[in-house]
Amino acid sequence: MQQAVDGLALWHQFVRERDPLVLEAALAEDAVFHSPVVYKPVNGRAAVMPYLLGAVRVLEDFSYARAFSRDDGAVLEFNARVGDRSVQGVDIIQLNAEGRISDFAVMVRPASGLEALRLAMGRLLGVIQ
Amino acid sequence: MQQAVDGLALWHQFVRERDPLVLEAALAEDAVFHSPVVYKPVNGRAAVMPYLLGAVRVLEDFSYARAFSRDDGAVLEFNARVGDRSVQGVDIIQLNAEGRISDFAVMVRPASGLEALRLAMGRLLGVIQ
Repeated sequence: MQQAVDGLALWHQFVRERDPLVLEAALAEDAVFHSPVVYKPVNGRAAVMPYLLGAVRVLEDFSYARAFSRDDGAVLEFNARVGDRSVQGVDIIQLNAEGRISDFAVMVRPASGLEALRLAMGRLLGVIQ
Repeated sequence: MQQAVDGLALWHQFVRERDPLVLEAALAEDAVFHSPVVYKPVNGRAAVMPYLLGAVRVLEDFSYARAFSRDDGAVLEFNARVGDRSVQGVDIIQLNAEGRISDFAVMVRPASGLEALRLAMGRLLGVIQ
């Protein structure tokens, strides 16, 4: 089935270009974000966007490593740095029938990297989570 | 190519049965483990086994959710609980040419779940990491 939108391709374009309009096009309006830090999900594209815009600013020297794909989504492994802390993580991306990102979960390791990310995102979003 | 061993099937059998001999058969002798807590990898089957034996004891109500597979590995998403803390995570499993698990990385969310897991594994292994 030809999908209307290739949400994964748009996501990769967003990571390269950091254009909020590309991110907006990648996300479903009812997209849900699961932060690596907080249990409670973030609901709706408008609420999700600041987290993903923040993540690409805070995660320095960002590069993707292994990718594990299936028709309705993918797990993208990444390596990055927050200040002097190494962060390894995964983006777990679920696509809806239209091809847009409907669910986006992030998990990172090790604990020191998670803490550095928590502090950096808290500063950026103006709230310590 | 027919592989000598189906490391992923053995891993699933180990999760069900918790038999150390099954885990031993699943792992390559030079297997590497990347803990969700500590940056430094754990090298070699004998050193890796206590972490995975411990994980299946500490993670209660464990169940796998989405799986993202490819020929040489898989990402297995799981849901579990440590005490009263929810833990969501991924097992990122790499197989060698023989079909055995050569690399095993775990990442979990949220931060409260990671901390509960760190404490529980520390108690079990007799060392606070």
